[in-house]
Amino acid sequence: MELRFGMVGGGNGAFIGDVHRHGAQMDDLAVLTAGCFTRNPQKNLEAGRKWHIHDESRIYPDYRTMAEEEAKREDGIQFVVITTPNVSHYEIAKCFMEHGVHVMCDKPLAFNLEQAQELEKIAKEKDLLFGLTYTYTGYAVIRQAREMIKAGKIGEILHVVAEYPQDWVISSLVQEKSDQAKWRFDPQIIGASLCTGDIGTHLEQLIAQSTGLTIKRVLARFDTYPRDLPLETNTTVLLDFGDNITGTLWASQIAIGYECGIKIRIFGTEGSLEWSHEMPGILKYTKINSPTMTLSANREYMCPESRRLSRLPAGHPEGYYEAFGNIYHSFCEHLLARLEGREPESYTYPTVEDGVHGMKFVKACVKSNAEGNIWVNVD
Amino acid sequence: MELRFGMVGGGNGAFIGDVHRHGAQMDDLAVLTAGCFTRNPQKNLEAGRKWHIHDESRIYPDYRTMAEEEAKREDGIQFVVITTPNVSHYEIAKCFMEHGVHVMCDKPLAFNLEQAQELEKIAKEKDLLFGLTYTYTGYAVIRQAREMIKAGKIGEILHVVAEYPQDWVISSLVQEKSDQAKWRFDPQIIGASLCTGDIGTHLEQLIAQSTGLTIKRVLARFDTYPRDLPLETNTTVLLDFGDNITGTLWASQIAIGYECGIKIRIFGTEGSLEWSHEMPGILKYTKINSPTMTLSANREYMCPESRRLSRLPAGHPEGYYEAFGNIYHSFCEHLLARLEGREPESYTYPTVEDGVHGMKFVKACVKSNAEGNIWVNVD
Amino acid sequence: MELRFGMVGGGNGAFIGDVHRHGAQMDDLAVLTAGCFTRNPQKNLEAGRKWHIHDESRIYPDYRTMAEEEAKREDGIQFVVITTPNVSHYEIAKCFMEHGVHVMCDKPLAFNLEQAQELEKIAKEKDLLFGLTYTYTGYAVIRQAREMIKAGKIGEILHVVAEYPQDWVISSLVQEKSDQAKWRFDPQIIGASLCTGDIGTHLEQLIAQSTGLTIKRVLARFDTYPRDLPLETNTTVLLDFGDNITGTLWASQIAIGYECGIKIRIFGTEGSLEWSHEMPGILKYTKINSPTMTLSANREYMCPESRRLSRLPAGHPEGYYEAFGNIYHSFCEHLLARLEGREPESYTYPTVEDGVHGMKFVKACVKSNAEGNIWVNVD
Amino acid sequence: MELRFGMVGGGNGAFIGDVHRHGAQMDDLAVLTAGCFTRNPQKNLEAGRKWHIHDESRIYPDYRTMAEEEAKREDGIQFVVITTPNVSHYEIAKCFMEHGVHVMCDKPLAFNLEQAQELEKIAKEKDLLFGLTYTYTGYAVIRQAREMIKAGKIGEILHVVAEYPQDWVISSLVQEKSDQAKWRFDPQIIGASLCTGDIGTHLEQLIAQSTGLTIKRVLARFDTYPRDLPLETNTTVLLDFGDNITGTLWASQIAIGYECGIKIRIFGTEGSLEWSHEMPGILKYTKINSPTMTLSANREYMCPESRRLSRLPAGHPEGYYEAFGNIYHSFCEHLLARLEGREPESYTYPTVEDGVHGMKFVKACVKSNAEGNIWVNVD
Repeated sequence: MELRFGMVGGGNGAFIGDVHRHGAQMDDLAVLTAGCFTRNPQKNLEAGRKWHIHDESRIYPDYRTMAEEEAKREDGIQFVVITTPNVSHYEIAKCFMEHGVHVMCDKPLAFNLEQAQELEKIAKEKDLLFGLTYTYTGYAVIRQAREMIKAGKIGEILHVVAEYPQDWVISSLVQEKSDQAKWRFDPQIIGASLCTGDIGTHLEQLIAQSTGLTIKRVLARFDTYPRDLPLETNTTVLLDFGDNITGTLWASQIAIGYECGIKIRIFGTEGSLEWSHEMPGILKYTKINSPTMTLSANREYMCPESRRLSRLPAGHPEGYYEAFGNIYHSFCEHLLARLEGREPESYTYPTVEDGVHGMKFVKACVKSNAEGNIWVNVD
Repeated sequence: MELRFGMVGGGNGAFIGDVHRHGAQMDDLAVLTAGCFTRNPQKNLEAGRKWHIHDESRIYPDYRTMAEEEAKREDGIQFVVITTPNVSHYEIAKCFMEHGVHVMCDKPLAFNLEQAQELEKIAKEKDLLFGLTYTYTGYAVIRQAREMIKAGKIGEILHVVAEYPQDWVISSLVQEKSDQAKWRFDPQIIGASLCTGDIGTHLEQLIAQSTGLTIKRVLARFDTYPRDLPLETNTTVLLDFGDNITGTLWASQIAIGYECGIKIRIFGTEGSLEWSHEMPGILKYTKINSPTMTLSANREYMCPESRRLSRLPAGHPEGYYEAFGNIYHSFCEHLLARLEGREPESYTYPTVEDGVHGMKFVKACVKSNAEGNIWVNVD
Repeated sequence: MELRFGMVGGGNGAFIGDVHRHGAQMDDLAVLTAGCFTRNPQKNLEAGRKWHIHDESRIYPDYRTMAEEEAKREDGIQFVVITTPNVSHYEIAKCFMEHGVHVMCDKPLAFNLEQAQELEKIAKEKDLLFGLTYTYTGYAVIRQAREMIKAGKIGEILHVVAEYPQDWVISSLVQEKSDQAKWRFDPQIIGASLCTGDIGTHLEQLIAQSTGLTIKRVLARFDTYPRDLPLETNTTVLLDFGDNITGTLWASQIAIGYECGIKIRIFGTEGSLEWSHEMPGILKYTKINSPTMTLSANREYMCPESRRLSRLPAGHPEGYYEAFGNIYHSFCEHLLARLEGREPESYTYPTVEDGVHGMKFVKACVKSNAEGNIWVNVD
Repeated sequence: MELRFGMVGGGNGAFIGDVHRHGAQMDDLAVLTAGCFTRNPQKNLEAGRKWHIHDESRIYPDYRTMAEEEAKREDGIQFVVITTPNVSHYEIAKCFMEHGVHVMCDKPLAFNLEQAQELEKIAKEKDLLFGLTYTYTGYAVIRQAREMIKAGKIGEILHVVAEYPQDWVISSLVQEKSDQAKWRFDPQIIGASLCTGDIGTHLEQLIAQSTGLTIKRVLARFDTYPRDLPLETNTTVLLDFGDNITGTLWASQIAIGYECGIKIRIFGTEGSLEWSHEMPGILKYTKINSPTMTLSANREYMCPESRRLSRLPAGHPEGYYEAFGNIYHSFCEHLLARLEGREPESYTYPTVEDGVHGMKFVKACVKSNAEGNIWVNVD
């Protein structure tokens, strides 16, 4: 059985739409069946044709029509992929859920916490699956880290250091280009946070998915450069996970020399784990007083939960597309199992609950920074 | 316009079939329309359905029928992807070419040089495109290397050092598993060479595609471990490109610690270039008496020919699938331009001529080794 | 002219005494002439003989006698090296300064801020040189960083990220060994801070020496593991340099997988610099929108101020001993120039003022942590 | 007991003299007592004074006088360090041995094989120690590799890949400077080989010392750039160790991007080892089908034979000077044990026999290249 999905957004050339479309179909678990890709009717039609929607009546002029019409069909879509700008996630997701359609949404979940919580509430009431594509949690070796921690391989966690330095804001502003980028600085469109919401949340999720820990309190400091931007471009957050477990999170969009340098280090009483996006198929593991070991995705010594997320023999690099594919893979497995009344073999993907926590995290950081870098509870 | 292609092989679960199928369709330039995926009729049908061949009459029981039937259709396939074992490439490619179908073939081109040369001859006579998927030549930064060399950025080339260490033979033999692997040691199936033909040719092509140089003479030494295997598992080759340009090529399938460690270093009179599969989106460039520079795929400072092969913003890793996609991208561009009477903007993919040269290279290495490690002309 | 120096401490086998002795004599600018190496008379004598103090009357039973006797001689020592535990630095340094002897002292400067400030006062009043061996500031490429920043190569500094993860506390406690280590956890011996004072101050100095910036305010969080230790073993500090320049400093002695992993990253408006102890002769430099460059110590493209601190051709690694040697080199140059009435060509070494600032930094961190992670002024 | 040594050469400012002097005295096992540092009498005297030869009568005008005079003294030098150009090693070493003085000589041993063999013969007849400073064999982790191989940690050795790329010839010629370098290209001064003799022999020794293997046959190809130089600047050698054990050695002085990039990889039936000068305190070890482990000098898991060669805690980099110090350390231990009638605890340093083998290796390579890249026996 193959799932049918529709897509809202993705028709305006942003790379992330392409990544969603490929990710969802990568492992032949789902097929694009309907869509509303852009408001421009001609481009919308062309996109639907190009991406092999054979029944052109299912290339819709707006998402509401799509939700209504697909809901009427016996062979209607089973889930929708939302890859529009942040500000519209809420209304689109809500609309499809009201028509009984499961949701896969680009992060962040919504424009603000209230919206996010309402989406969570609806998903629960309607008993619908709601996934979020926090990309980096999809890498096969992140799953390995999670399983090793569960198995006690590093003892009790003591401290977590996560960072995500980028240079795109400073680099693109210097070149005075990037029309695309301008909306990204507008609080009316993106909300009360730039760097924290955009990439800080990736770290928050990566920590959650790899360690199983939840951030309880934050103490955040925001920096802004260029100085006259309305929102922060560099964020440092002290993390408190409770039980004397602490951490630090640094996200930056002005870090010249880094492009997409997300990295996590997890220190425990018996060992440590380290992952860097620079070599995304590698996980470094050190047992106390032992040499550091370099674990490589899909080797036989890796755990089955991780190997299921590898498509290629060890040493053949899988990248960003495939990490996305893994999130969709887990989501589709879960949905298929649900539809077939089975227990899924294994699924781990960020959900609406994670998205709500992410929104709370950002809100707490904004508050902490505004009030002079004080501790603020996330919940 | 979207190209229609068929596929022979790929239905038995080998990962490479999957890589071909994804690669060919990655950029929406071609769509799988027909196929003969395996000899098992039930599995063949299932594969065709799963991969969305909507007209089930185009899921064929054998490749000859496929070639004949597709040739009769107005909307028949425009190219065929051959991803069967080495030994059958020749007859399948020949059959499709005789029916006027362009060919994309897994490497190596054929079982022996004679077959390879006949395929080359047919392709020329019929004026058909014939591509070969030497994967590593598809990485975006390899194209960057090629353009930088053309532009004189490293001066005149003096010396090339290429290596491809793997551990799979020694690792899998130790574990006494790998049914799949057994046929790989059978000279009846794979020909007169194991390591040289399987991965040495990847190096030969990588050198050719990145530098533009052609190997004129070789002096090869083969080693075999386990000692009783019929064919070599470790190959060292001194290379002579003429004009006092030299090089060394080392391919190994017993190199514990390496999985897919292909790497090339090109030394010139004014600078050097270095690429390693470990970080496939990075190209190291050193101008004489200057600091080494780390070039990253898809940055604005990269040349347009390379950037066209990147789908994601810099720092978002593209891997093995995407490298395959790039080879198909170039092939499809070329074919589309041909069909539309245009000049393609740019295409660089390994062709049947390259495949013939690769066969000659292997043959010369086998001879050099057999005769006591003497110089042997490739042509 | 060669300087004469004496040494207090270094006779009990701690590696750091050896490092001082070698460092001071590495470039033939000074020679060990007198000493009081340990309280054990026999071992003291043996040490003095072994280290070529030819006049055995200059192997002293205690540091006071040494200060007095050397001060009486025309050929008395010109500077003293103090390499005893932290708690005795103050009295020894004070004693020698009162006898007109210049001082080179192991870090930290003193047991507490009051002592440190008194030493600073005496040094000023007596117009004596007083250096401190913050090792990492001695690497040749740190000097390169300083000069590049001065020359505007990275524009205005925006943010600094410094870290120093080690595993020695957690590793040695697990093994229940390390008598030597026990005193290191005793607040009566080491003062009010463990990790911050021991290695956090190395970061504070490294930031100061490489960037020229001074930390104005800190917000610190201390963690302790094992939980019942009296002092912190993991420190995270938010840094405020004024003028909207910020930073973060992380020092840890429980970071399994790291031995001496000091690293600094300096982000500016036009570029960035990065140095890691893992490869201490390398400095990474990225100009905005340009490939990262790997600068190597002693290449011709390095600045003269840095090259003066390299003894070997580029690529020949100089390590920890040589970094120490560079600090002594700068100190000796300065002292020689002073004695000869010249202006030294160039000297940069941490001084008593830096040591006082380091003590203030630690005190402010202790206070910030104790009061709930609030901002505390350093001065 | 401390050994007394004299030095011939080292007074003309070449860095290697300094490295010898420091290395010999690093661990307080020997002290410089006599010398003939340069033919210039004034500079000779100054050098002797600067380096603390207290009895100025032992600063000699020529090495013959030094040998004679020191031989007459009861407290004469016990070994001599020879750090003059290659061409004079033979006569100096011979002279001192004839006076019963042990020898430590800079590599290569002599100008040609005949000289080398005579030195070997004299050393045997006189029962004198004769060490050679092949630097890279002195790193602590090279000793670890040797012990691990002896202990069977990588099974039977199958293949060795060693390389030593440098850029100094091409870089300095481009800048048309380097008076110092000119004599290095003169066959009258350096013999029949440039790159092979200068740095190829470092690889030959590194292989011997780390693996315990001896090269039986070579097949060498020399390249020369600039094309009109009299001797080779790039060397590739196929190695045959017998017993089906093979290897490759590549040395280059035109490899832009590399400064001192010596590296060795040793592949066995059960594992592999890898060392690179880039991080000289690290040894990579991979057991078959296991993650690669990163071993770090002086950790408790290292073998005692290696840890004895580390002076600093793990993670504190020791470099080129210290590697030299380790060779002297082993030599001095051996000599002290000899003089005291003890068995030394452990010593491993390259000897005159190794030097002779190195000369044979170069001679065989020269012959192989001259005769068209054929196999030539080393012995």
